[in-house]
Parts: sequence; structure tokens; C-alpha cells
Amino acid sequence: MGDKAQIQEAIKTQGEVVRKLKTEKASQEQINEEVAKLLQLKASLGEDDGKHQFVLKTAKGTRDYNPKQMAIRERVFNTIVGSFKRHGAETIDTPVFELKETLTGKYGEDSKLIYDLKDQGGELLSLRYDLTVPFARYLAMNKITNIKRYHIAKVYRRDNPAMTRGRYREFYQCDFDIAGQYDAMIPDAECLKIVYEILSELDLGDFRIKVNDRRILDGMFAVCGVPKDKFRTICSTVDKLDKLPWEEVRKEMVNEKGLSEAAADQIGEYVSMQGGLDLAERLLKDQKLSQSKDACDGLTDIKLLFTYLQIFQVTDKVVFDLSLARGLDYYTGIIYEAVLTQAGVSLVSAEGQNGAPPEESVNVGSVAGGGRYDGLVGMFDSKGRKVPCVGVSIGIERIFSIMEQKAEASAEKVRTTEVQILVASAQKNLLEEKLKLITELWKAGIKAEVMYKKNPKLLSQLQYCEEMGIPLVAILGEQELKDGVVKLRAVATREELDISRSDLIGEIRKRTSEA
Amino acid sequence: MGDKAQIQEAIKTQGEVVRKLKTEKASQEQINEEVAKLLQLKASLGEDDGKHQFVLKTAKGTRDYNPKQMAIRERVFNTIVGSFKRHGAETIDTPVFELKETLTGKYGEDSKLIYDLKDQGGELLSLRYDLTVPFARYLAMNKITNIKRYHIAKVYRRDNPAMTRGRYREFYQCDFDIAGQYDAMIPDAECLKIVYEILSELDLGDFRIKVNDRRILDGMFAVCGVPKDKFRTICSTVDKLDKLPWEEVRKEMVNEKGLSEAAADQIGEYVSMQGGLDLAERLLKDQKLSQSKDACDGLTDIKLLFTYLQIFQVTDKVVFDLSLARGLDYYTGIIYEAVLTQAGVSLVSAEGQNGAPPEESVNVGSVAGGGRYDGLVGMFDSKGRKVPCVGVSIGIERIFSIMEQKAEASAEKVRTTEVQILVASAQKNLLEEKLKLITELWKAGIKAEVMYKKNPKLLSQLQYCEEMGIPLVAILGEQELKDGVVKLRAVATREELDISRSDLIGEIRKRTSEA
Repeated sequence: MGDKAQIQEAIKTQGEVVRKLKTEKASQEQINEEVAKLLQLKASLGEDDGKHQFVLKTAKGTRDYNPKQMAIRERVFNTIVGSFKRHGAETIDTPVFELKETLTGKYGEDSKLIYDLKDQGGELLSLRYDLTVPFARYLAMNKITNIKRYHIAKVYRRDNPAMTRGRYREFYQCDFDIAGQYDAMIPDAECLKIVYEILSELDLGDFRIKVNDRRILDGMFAVCGVPKDKFRTICSTVDKLDKLPWEEVRKEMVNEKGLSEAAADQIGEYVSMQGGLDLAERLLKDQKLSQSKDACDGLTDIKLLFTYLQIFQVTDKVVFDLSLARGLDYYTGIIYEAVLTQAGVSLVSAEGQNGAPPEESVNVGSVAGGGRYDGLVGMFDSKGRKVPCVGVSIGIERIFSIMEQKAEASAEKVRTTEVQILVASAQKNLLEEKLKLITELWKAGIKAEVMYKKNPKLLSQLQYCEEMGIPLVAILGEQELKDGVVKLRAVATREELDISRSDLIGEIRKRTSEA
Repeated sequence: MGDKAQIQEAIKTQGEVVRKLKTEKASQEQINEEVAKLLQLKASLGEDDGKHQFVLKTAKGTRDYNPKQMAIRERVFNTIVGSFKRHGAETIDTPVFELKETLTGKYGEDSKLIYDLKDQGGELLSLRYDLTVPFARYLAMNKITNIKRYHIAKVYRRDNPAMTRGRYREFYQCDFDIAGQYDAMIPDAECLKIVYEILSELDLGDFRIKVNDRRILDGMFAVCGVPKDKFRTICSTVDKLDKLPWEEVRKEMVNEKGLSEAAADQIGEYVSMQGGLDLAERLLKDQKLSQSKDACDGLTDIKLLFTYLQIFQVTDKVVFDLSLARGLDYYTGIIYEAVLTQAGVSLVSAEGQNGAPPEESVNVGSVAGGGRYDGLVGMFDSKGRKVPCVGVSIGIERIFSIMEQKAEASAEKVRTTEVQILVASAQKNLLEEKLKLITELWKAGIKAEVMYKKNPKLLSQLQYCEEMGIPLVAILGEQELKDGVVKLRAVATREELDISRSDLIGEIRKRTSEA
């Protein structure tokens, strides 16, 4: 009882500490710290008069994954990693934070979205914003000039979250990149092949992969009369065309970015063009655009790319689209982005005869994107040695959202474990016998559970199986033990049969082997 | 310019620091650290005369995983997850950062090691310190009272890294926990069974699992005359017994923590005891210790635990050890810790006839630990509703280190991809034919690569296979194309045979199916 009085005294003192800090307008952090101590004292008293004051939530823009969501996530990852491995990729991992300066100057206007760590002494650190910059740092640091690798990990952006549409502040990226000095467009085409495979296998409905080239954009800006120092900022504006109508984008170019109306209108003509190999050929003969060496280099590569894409049998979904810009600073060549389109939407195929925009196409958001970045690794090299790279990042969160909605709509139950059998009994005092049996099963590699009760009711054991989708039950009773058998019950059919202990493992394997 | 002069001065000083360390043959880690500072100073000067001065390193205490390390990591994870799934666990995931207040007051003296994020407006956030507190927050937030889940993810501690011994600031934890109101010691015993399975399957050499109970420690402190408000701090000191000799620990108790010499000596007697069920029985009759209800409750549970452990066939590695304390504040009952012991070390078995400490036992570090924490979830519940929990955390980084050393020592080459075949040619101008063939292979699910060159030399293609451990090569030539065949070459034996295109996929599958 002395204890209690002591704590009550401590609560009083701590309450004063908090009041004083508040009066003195101390930092919120300091106040929170002391309030937490106070609450803890109160909790330790056990007299919590009903309410603790904890805020029970995850950080803004983040979420937990429950077991059902994890089961779906695992399925999606397996499909994606399956494709990456089929194409011979290795995998690496990098720390979740990097030296702040490693990220500095890589993301253009988006740098403000980087999460910094508090300066607690020592190095200044930031959470990674993507997996590409850490990859480039890794290559330069280890002097690696050739690698094909994938990396699946979370990245962090202090963006305005729109979680219902799959936009988070903490989210997974699944990146596949090919680094090395190779012949033109072969690795680039493989990246697109992989996007095609993954989106097809995930069965998310129809999709389209837009392709463009930074050099074509630059050439287009040059021949349309954009001053060179405005290329990047005008490019950012063009990038908004997937969300805004041309009129708005034009307004931003002219009013905010100070572009002439004539230049904007010329850009407007080009960025409305979509097609395939044919469009690249036509533009190579375009009087204005062919003046730019950059544009011609880009167009020649687009032509070669489509030749390889035809062999890879993916041109039905790939569109050369001059409005595709992509925000990041580091791209130097081919860029691409995959969007899901609603079912039944007419799509301009790569072989399409004209560049008209697809009718009724509804942009439900980008699910993959990437491109060539030949300069990024050199930014980390003390001698500026370049390692050409091309890669793609799968935007997995949107895909999770869609898969989750699908799972919810479907009648099929998502299993969250792979348990094959529950070891159960109808009678009392058989816990030790059940533990003996389950030890045998575990030893044989069987996935098995037993209820953590000495004497659970048979009904509650069977209900647990229904709930978790466990297909089999091994029922032990005095008689079974005497006879050296187990009653094996199939949960779905309720059929039961006695089976000798020595045959049990084989029978479980037979009944639960995946077809 | 004054600034510049200052920096130049600092560069000079720092240069001397580095030179001095090198002369003194300081640790490479320390030298790297100071070189990094030097480079940073130089970079801040902005005079990079053609060469960038980026500091190419990962943050202190963190590391990249290269493909070989990832291959080993995947193997270790597969073993661990295999065991978790065999025991019927679901999995969840939580964000890498939590609201700062969620972590406040959960880690005792270790709270200072928490990484905070910078206040950039909005919530105050911290990187997770372990997976247990986020788990408890998850349970309380979602009002979950029953779950068996595993969670594999990275956690963060601003500790002094000792990376050669597998101690990092960013490191994986693999946690398995059982939450729910169950009969005593059944889930607890399963946690120990899992540790036993995992450490056996990973084949890391001999190990020992120490078991104790917080209530036994508290009871022991009480009967030895430790004041109640010193239980936690004396417990932290006892926790150091795995690193320090008793004499040092005693000194800390008496000199720093102000304990009486008599009390310390009594504790010293108890914490030297090790044994099994027999020791628990003996202590239940111990005149002094049996005065404490806490201690009796703990000892009764230890007895029951060992009964279940005997059925689970794991008592050859489990030791009831009164010196085991574990640092974290939240444990309320059974606690345990697994340590690797060097091969051939004599170990006090649980059935051992006396409590003598093991001879020549070398503590090479804890690789798993856990215990019961019945109060933690209640700390997050507005009504203080408790959810009893017990769990274990596998310290995977030490295990990675050991596996890596093993892999390096072994002649066996670690493959970093699963590629089954390389599509190659000896002649020029066959790129498109190769791409056609590889498209067929990918479609059939074969893991296949092709060099990203138009006309690679056959020798360099074969060398690539050797290097990457690719077992098969499909060689295309004009003649093969005419004949509708492929030359299939086994890399190891150099045997070649012509095989028709239609039989190729079956043959690849047959030759590369895992036995």
C-alpha cells in the first residue's frame, strides 16, 4: 500500500512538470515525453478511471497489412519475382536510409518530399525516396559496371496521401534494372517485356504501356522554340497531361513558365500524337523535328525498340506517345509508363493506322514506369565514369488495392495460413497425447496446429478449422489410443475414417498435396 | 570567403587526423569514418575541379546486401518461415515508423537508442525499435485478442555497431508471437520448440536455450532484500552476466546501484544456478525463495513448461538458468534466450544432475530471445484490457554472418540466379532469331537469358554461363535454323546434341528439374 502512495506522489509531481512545460510553451516533443511518463504512472496505478490517452493509429499515409492483405501481397510478389527471375535477375538490398547528400540533387522539384531523420549527432540521414538512386550509389561504391538486379522494398515520400487510390507515404517499389554498356534497345525492350508479362499474369484487366524518349522531348522543345534552360520545367508541365487537359497544361506553360503562345501551340500539336513504329518513321521525316539531332537519335531508337517488341510479341499494348514526360530528372533516353485502362476500351495499337487518341480511354492510374538513366551512376563516381542503366519500377500499391477489392468481391475465401491438419480430441485430459502426435507431424514437415487449451470442446476445434480453412482434423480419443489409430476427418465433407498412426503422415500428404 | 578559409583550415586538420589514424594502424572502420568526414568537408568547398567529392558509403552501422548475400539471406528466411508456417502462423506487416508516443516508455534505458525523424511539420515519428511494440499497438488498435503471427522486417537502433560480429544499426528481426488467453505454458512451449527447430535446421553448430521467469527474478530480488523500486535496475545489471564476470556485476550492484553487499551476495548464489525440471522442484522447496508467491508461481510454470518441452523432445538444449534477465521492460513471465556454443562444448542438460555452470562454454552471442509480455497490449488499450502474449525473436544478422563465413569457407559456389539456359550463337546476325527462341522459352516459364549484344563471341557466352552457374546453352546457327533444331550444350560436361525445337522445352525441364 505504501507503493501506491508513492506512485500517487509521483503522479502529482509529474503533473506539475507537465503543467510547467505547457506554461513555458516548451517544445511539443518535450511535453509529449512528459505526458507519456504521466500516463504511464497513472496506468501503473491501475486506477485508470476508464481512459488512457494513447493515440492508436499508424503514421499519416501509412498502413498495417493484416494477414489477409499479406496473403494477397505474397501472391502478387510471387508473380512479380517469378518474372524477374525468369529473366535472370539477381537481387540486392540497401538500407532504408541513406546519407542525406546521396539523395540531394537527384529528384528535381520532388526533393521536398524526402523524409529526413532528426539530427541526433553523427551523420545526416534521409529515408530513401526510390530504389534507383540507392542502386546507382551501390554500383558506384562497388565499382560494378554490369548487373541485372531486382529490388523489392519500401520507399518514403512526404506526399499528400490518397490511400483509397493506393497512394501512400510508405509504399513498396519493385524495381528491375539492367546496368551495363550494351547494344541499343535490347535491355530496354526486355524491361517492357517484363512489364507486359507481369501485368498480364496479374490479370488486372486491360493495360497500355506508353513509350517516349527524353531526347525526342528535348528535340521537340528545341524545334518549338523553348529556351534550353526551360526544358526541364516545361517537361514537368507536359508530365501533367495524364491528369490535366491540354488547355490547363498550356495555360501553365504560358502564364506560369513564361513560354510564348506560339511555342506552346507547337508543343500541343506534337504531344497529341500516338502510334507505333509507323509514327516514329513519320516523325523522322517531319520537317521541323528532323532538324534536331536529339530527336532523330530518339526516334531511331524507338524504331529499333519496336522491332524487338514485335519479336517479344508485346506490341498490342505498347504505344509511342509523345505526351509522356515523367517527372524525374535523371532519365536520359527511353521512358515508359504502364496504365490500366478499363475493360473494353478501344486502344490505339502500335500497328494502328493513325495517331488519334484512344476513344473513351479512362486513365485509372499508372502501375509501372521507368526508363533509361545513363548519367546517374556517374554522378556518384569520383571520375564521373558512366554506367548506362535502364529499368522499370512496378507500382505495387495500386495493384494491391485492386487485388484486395477483387478478393473482397469474390466468394472465394483467402486463406492466411497453410495448415494441413488440426490435432484435436473429443475427450478430456488428452493434451499430452495431442502434443505427442503433433510433435510427430511437425517432425515430418506437416503443417499442424493444436488448440492452446487443455480441454477444448470438439465443436470449437471444428469451428476453428472452418474459420481458418484447415482441411483435415486428427481426432484422438481413449479408444483410438488403445487401437493405435487416429480418426481422420475431412472438414469439408465431414467424412471420418480410422487410420493407423504409421499411415497417417502419408495420408495427410496425399490429401493435401497441391494438384 | 571567410567561410572558405575556415573550411580549408578544417580540411587541413581533418587530413592530419586521417594520417595519424593510418600511422597508428587504427581500425579500418574508424579510418573510413574520418576519411568520409574529410571528403565531406572537401565537397562542401564546392571546388571539385572535375571530380565529384561524393562520400560513397552507407550510413554508419548499415550495409548493402550483394546478390550472394541475398541468396544466403533467402535460404535462411526460407528455413525460418518454413518453421513459422509449419506451426500455423499468419503474417502481418506494420510501417517502418510509428508515432513517437507509441514507442515512448516501452524500452526502459534503451529508449535513447530510438531513431527519431526530423520534425518537418505534422506528426512526430520514430523508426521502430523492435517488432513487438508495433505488434501490441496493432492488436490494441484492431481489438484483436487472438492471433498467432510472424513478422520479418528491419528494426533500427542507434547503438554502437560492431558489424563484424553481426551487430548493426539496421537489422532484421524475425518474430513469432502468440496472443490470446490460453492455458499455461502451451504457447510458451511452442515458441521454444520453434527456436529449437530453426537453430537445428540452420545447422549452426551446438546451441543452448536458457529459460527463466521474470517472477522468479522478482521473487529472488524480494527475498534477497532488494527494495522494490530497484527491481528493474538490478535486473538490468543481472542481464550483463552473459558479458561480464560475477565480480564486475556485483561491483555495479553495490557501488553504482547502492545495493547492500549482503543482498548482492545472496543474489550471486541464486544466479549461479542452472538446471532443468529438477532445479525448479528444488527451488520450490528452497526456504527463502519459497517465501515469495511470485517466485513460486514462476517455478510452477517452469515445471509445467519442462513437462511440455519433454514431449516436444527439446530438453537436451534447454537450461533453466537463474542468471537470465533480458533487458526489456515489458516481460512479465517466462523469458528465454538462445546462444550458440562452440562445437564440442559440454553443456549442462536440462536433465543434468547438478547446477554447475557448463565447462569451457564459450558464449558466441545470443541468436534468439523472447518471453511472455502480458501487459504490453493493455498499455495501448483505452480501458487497459490485457491480451496475454508470448513470443520469440530470431536474431537473424548473427546467423547471416555465420552463414556467410561458412559459404566463403566452402568450395561450393553460391548461385545468385536460377537461370536454366542461355540462348547463344556462334555466328553473327542472329540476334533476332535468338530473341524469337527466348520468347518461346519465357512463355513456357523457362528461366532464360540472352547476351545484350548483337554479335557476342561464343567464348564470352560460355564464360558467362560458367561465371553464373547456368547449366545449359541453346546454340543457334544457320544450319540449326535450317534444320529446325537447336544445339543443346551442357556447360559442365561440354556435351552437345541437336534437339528439335518442339522437344527443347521438355528437355530443358527434364535436365534442370530439382531432384
